[in-house]
Amino acid sequence: MVRYSDNLRPVLQSLKPYVAGRGIQEIARAYGLEPQSIVKLGSNENPYGPSPSVRPAMARAPVELYPEAEDFISALAEYTGFSEEEVLVGSGMDGVMDTLTRLFLGPGDTSLIPTPTFSYYEILTRLCGADPTFVRRGPEFQVLERSARGAKMTFLCSPNNPTGNVLEEEDLRRLVESTEGIVFLDEAYVDFARRSLAGLVREYENLVVGRTMSKAFGLAGLRLGYALAPPWIAEQYRRAAPPFFGLTTTSVAAGVAALGDLEHMRRSVARIVSERERLTSEIPGARPSQGNFLYLETASPSSEVAEAMLGKGVIIRDCRSFRDAGLHRIRVTVGTPQQNDRFLEAYREICTSP
Amino acid sequence: MVRYSDNLRPVLQSLKPYVAGRGIQEIARAYGLEPQSIVKLGSNENPYGPSPSVRPAMARAPVELYPEAEDFISALAEYTGFSEEEVLVGSGMDGVMDTLTRLFLGPGDTSLIPTPTFSYYEILTRLCGADPTFVRRGPEFQVLERSARGAKMTFLCSPNNPTGNVLEEEDLRRLVESTEGIVFLDEAYVDFARRSLAGLVREYENLVVGRTMSKAFGLAGLRLGYALAPPWIAEQYRRAAPPFFGLTTTSVAAGVAALGDLEHMRRSVARIVSERERLTSEIPGARPSQGNFLYLETASPSSEVAEAMLGKGVIIRDCRSFRDAGLHRIRVTVGTPQQNDRFLEAYREICTSP
Repeated sequence: MVRYSDNLRPVLQSLKPYVAGRGIQEIARAYGLEPQSIVKLGSNENPYGPSPSVRPAMARAPVELYPEAEDFISALAEYTGFSEEEVLVGSGMDGVMDTLTRLFLGPGDTSLIPTPTFSYYEILTRLCGADPTFVRRGPEFQVLERSARGAKMTFLCSPNNPTGNVLEEEDLRRLVESTEGIVFLDEAYVDFARRSLAGLVREYENLVVGRTMSKAFGLAGLRLGYALAPPWIAEQYRRAAPPFFGLTTTSVAAGVAALGDLEHMRRSVARIVSERERLTSEIPGARPSQGNFLYLETASPSSEVAEAMLGKGVIIRDCRSFRDAGLHRIRVTVGTPQQNDRFLEAYREICTSP
Repeated sequence: MVRYSDNLRPVLQSLKPYVAGRGIQEIARAYGLEPQSIVKLGSNENPYGPSPSVRPAMARAPVELYPEAEDFISALAEYTGFSEEEVLVGSGMDGVMDTLTRLFLGPGDTSLIPTPTFSYYEILTRLCGADPTFVRRGPEFQVLERSARGAKMTFLCSPNNPTGNVLEEEDLRRLVESTEGIVFLDEAYVDFARRSLAGLVREYENLVVGRTMSKAFGLAGLRLGYALAPPWIAEQYRRAAPPFFGLTTTSVAAGVAALGDLEHMRRSVARIVSERERLTSEIPGARPSQGNFLYLETASPSSEVAEAMLGKGVIIRDCRSFRDAGLHRIRVTVGTPQQNDRFLEAYREICTSP
């Protein structure tokens, strides 16, 4: 008898599927709550949303025609100061990384991933049939200096998800110079941090910096990612990328409009940074973060804390799905002052009652 | 000295990048034309667009929150009569196929592709490090009966892009029963044809049927694809798919709204089918097609015909990018009566003048 499942690639057995933050509709259904009563602080979204110019631009975009990405690429080139040849776009930074890993990783290759960090680096590595190597960050969450010589790709994230700490320029330089492979620096949260290291892409032939419109620009729902890369990598990326780079006509229009109103983005970032500092000072023992989220240690298991929070209509992130984060860490997104107060109230009740 | 390009996967050398139909903005820039004066009949889009209920639904969708695909999956289950467990969604059918190929194809595997057909099957096979095997269709464009025993995946397309002919049920059954691999049947254009073969998914454990909202539903710009699959394949798909299945909040809202107005879709399909029959009868030697396009033989090289058409502001598809289509074939989308008249006028001038 034919067993069709014998056709499955063996690598699927080692694949731990991606766990996204939980959605409002999903939680409303599961807990019998009104969607409007739910505070979603589990996915590091921006509660202020995008520039008001985004909606009218989307309404003008054709939906019956296939997308053209050129305008978005031009707008990103202007925003970043890089040339259009150095700007890669994709369906979220996830989409950008998906294509990049397929350029470099195959069976027999390894990637280097300092943990805890965003779990998608591991998933993409395994999907390519390659093997991830993990290095635990030290107590100060610095990236351990380590020979990445054998790694075809090294994944760094700064500010790091979920820990919120940043990579120093000299650490990045040392790593990029010590490896013969490609270094991918994920700067999804960089707009909330003091500085970006993207300028180094101009100095190294093996450094790619990923960015997203999901966080500071408030467009998580439209999956707009990009990266800055040396031209030789960008050229190969364009050869291997999915049709239309996985973008939609409305997301392209939204991205262009959002990049045309940097004032709005900067105002929302300033509000979030100010609230982040308030939350950090109000929560005893909270470490400083340079993202739009805090990484907190909990006395009870994080799964229980997350569950209790859901009962109060507050979605936060149970960090068990982050390798090496352990069982007592949660991540909470910095929301509006009102959302943060809802979180603080729930947190104090659940985590600090004797 | 380090050569970073040594890190590239060797398979990239054999990769022929995907060639999409050309865009209005691209052609307007290149030929100095007004975008409104251009008739785009090169990408098999639906000129009637989606249901009027789509725009308001998109305007209500949040853009700052990550997508949730559940409502779209439910609406597709209702539309197709399959259960939610059997419905897969992705960023266009391209995205669905991308994930499916990653379940089954790796280095050392082969896929079977009857040509000429949609070029993305070959690209995805190669991206997985596997090798495509090509079988030329006979003069009647029937799928050649052939042992696909060794192929991990077989790609069929009905109505076939670009030829417009359809697969007979008995041919599909014979193929599905003769292979130990997985058969993927691309039904992107099925709404313009007399019948679908998707019901066979319930009978076979190795058949997956792909569909899209890009054609009959007029939503090419929003990249909404889906597939009907046996539960064991669907389960693996959900494990390996990208975050949020590569969908956006607005595309999910649009898809749900479009599926709620089947009347609109059926009206636009009826108009296109009627125009297809008119074009077929007005063009000497045109073969019947069951898609929303015609596949035409040209006396001059197709590249010259396509170029001359562009000069008149009419975008059609030069089929040279379809393996085994040769150098004298073009594909033209059936548009509105006015667009078709513009095409006919240009076609007569370019292709039938002595």
